Amino acid sequence: MFVVDCDCHNGWNSADVLLPYLDGWWKDCYMRGERTGPPGSFPHGHRAWFHPEDFNRADVQPKNEDEHYEMMRDNHLNPNGINAAILTGDLPLEVSTLGNGHFAQALASAYNDWVINNWLPRDERFYGSLIVAPQDPPLAAAEVRRLGAHPKLVQVLASHGSTMPYGDPFYHPIYEACAEVGLPFSVHLGGNGGINTTSFAGGSPRYYSEAHTLFTQLAQTHLVSMIMNGVFEKYPSLKFIVIECGVSWVAPLIWRLDADWKALRKETPWVKKAPSEYVREHVRFTTQPLEQPANIEHLWAVLAAIHGRETLMFAADYPHWDQDDISAIKLPEEWREDVFGLNALRTYSRLAHLEPEARRAAAAI
Amino acid sequence: MFVVDCDCHNGWNSADVLLPYLDGWWKDCYMRGERTGPPGSFPHGHRAWFHPEDFNRADVQPKNEDEHYEMMRDNHLNPNGINAAILTGDLPLEVSTLGNGHFAQALASAYNDWVINNWLPRDERFYGSLIVAPQDPPLAAAEVRRLGAHPKLVQVLASHGSTMPYGDPFYHPIYEACAEVGLPFSVHLGGNGGINTTSFAGGSPRYYSEAHTLFTQLAQTHLVSMIMNGVFEKYPSLKFIVIECGVSWVAPLIWRLDADWKALRKETPWVKKAPSEYVREHVRFTTQPLEQPANIEHLWAVLAAIHGRETLMFAADYPHWDQDDISAIKLPEEWREDVFGLNALRTYSRLAHLEPEARRAAAAI
Repeated sequence: MFVVDCDCHNGWNSADVLLPYLDGWWKDCYMRGERTGPPGSFPHGHRAWFHPEDFNRADVQPKNEDEHYEMMRDNHLNPNGINAAILTGDLPLEVSTLGNGHFAQALASAYNDWVINNWLPRDERFYGSLIVAPQDPPLAAAEVRRLGAHPKLVQVLASHGSTMPYGDPFYHPIYEACAEVGLPFSVHLGGNGGINTTSFAGGSPRYYSEAHTLFTQLAQTHLVSMIMNGVFEKYPSLKFIVIECGVSWVAPLIWRLDADWKALRKETPWVKKAPSEYVREHVRFTTQPLEQPANIEHLWAVLAAIHGRETLMFAADYPHWDQDDISAIKLPEEWREDVFGLNALRTYSRLAHLEPEARRAAAAI
Repeated sequence: MFVVDCDCHNGWNSADVLLPYLDGWWKDCYMRGERTGPPGSFPHGHRAWFHPEDFNRADVQPKNEDEHYEMMRDNHLNPNGINAAILTGDLPLEVSTLGNGHFAQALASAYNDWVINNWLPRDERFYGSLIVAPQDPPLAAAEVRRLGAHPKLVQVLASHGSTMPYGDPFYHPIYEACAEVGLPFSVHLGGNGGINTTSFAGGSPRYYSEAHTLFTQLAQTHLVSMIMNGVFEKYPSLKFIVIECGVSWVAPLIWRLDADWKALRKETPWVKKAPSEYVREHVRFTTQPLEQPANIEHLWAVLAAIHGRETLMFAADYPHWDQDDISAIKLPEEWREDVFGLNALRTYSRLAHLEPEARRAAAAI
């Protein structure tokens, strides 16, 4: 089977690796400015919910920059048979929490340059994400245009923590740039702090486990917003990818949204089709963390309801605490080739060239 | 079949009906104070999302206070074979939006006195809700104790719009009073404005249809919060009822919460059991608006996952725009007696005396 891991986190030991990619003014901000940890920590507005176990697997503690790659290769890529891995960074996503959008985008751009120079050349299985700071959409759009032609950057990526739902016209300059360069716009769980502190419906929970369960809500808001603000009518080629936000909530949400659209569609006449149709055509969801109900048939029912064989893409989320074990993922047997690999090749245009290899892998089984 | 409608809205033509139940100071506030509409409108902080069609059915437009009852009787109770109807008020729920919690509770108390004097005597099928303003829990608790012994008030009711998630210790005085008088604590969709303006995860949507779809989020937050803050361990007799918030999102949320609890339960050692167990024992959901997927089996799978035959209770939501037609509700045949009537008699202790009558109705079919 040909496997694409759509959420593989490349880390660092110190954010100082970004120094060569920061210019004088922002380098000064980075070196001398206030931050939330000791020298080498990444500046970001942290959330109120501290993970009581930290995020990383206890058995993955690289001691230097080279080991970050070597441990990923030896603990994940090789043993799990990963044929292509989409690197999603780690702390850089949190630039969305910073009030100063200029500094935030400077840090994201430094990350992008760093990943191009220091990660992509290490392994031919690697593909990268073009991280943007969404709080200043024209700056983010400029970054998309600066690097969007790179053959190994497969998506534009932002945290799912936001000041406004992502369908809001405020963000459309980013999608215009994405459509122009032919990259999907993807959101990854994160950024729930700083200028995005009011992240949950009904007020702030107290415990990390509550927050982790409710992080799905932001993805719900963004998905509804992208559809109902007509983003997919305005940018018909745009794909929207939801990473690390769970998948079983999508069907219940879209049942309700379809009903509301049907009853109230004169309010949003630019939404030409039922929301569920936009989901099937434009939206993809990565699997991790895949829900594990007592009765797996209950999960499969809600995944079938969103045409999961077409809309789901495998992700492991190495090296995080709740990484999904590839051998333990239970999906209908006939979905596996699509979900584990082919859907990613159909969704990420920069991966399409891998399809012959994937077909050979399928035939070889 | 014996039918209990768990969400039946009793309205008025003018909030001036409350005047006999307001004392000098709050009467002055009501008469002379700023409000959001003409004289007779109810003071509340309105939401940013205006319903483009208004809430009420176009065919239900009572011209005076008596007609509110007569139209409900002739358009809903009689033709739909309702054996017991739990009145949930209408605008009074929105007291939760007011900054001044004293004024808010005075208005809620006036509503409670009004419903006792002007609605409950009209029809022996009527039962009432004891509405509280949750933003000042000690005042709300005092109101629960003032009227909690009334044999026809079956629940303590608040809007699901809140300043904090309802499991927060801030609200526990309300639950202590509920446990003391033996009434469930119920939340009903509403109150998403005023001091509760940051109601959605990830920022504010623009359109009513988006907001209506996402109103489920607040119920998600409250349900997680009630469980993870140990409310059901602290008040073992307490029942929590979620009204008009949909039902299909519950299973996906609880799958995720069970996993997070299992991984991180040392963070909340007072949560002794898996969250799904608290749901089954302490939480009930009213059906309206029941989701309507293309394949009804997909819905039934997620309802089976939360033991829907035990945890669901029928509600029509008369006379609102999205009222569920009782004849169109599709549930497994063997669930119907429980969901349409018996579960309400098991959940609301003040309805338990109806069980012999319900058994006779079941036998008569």
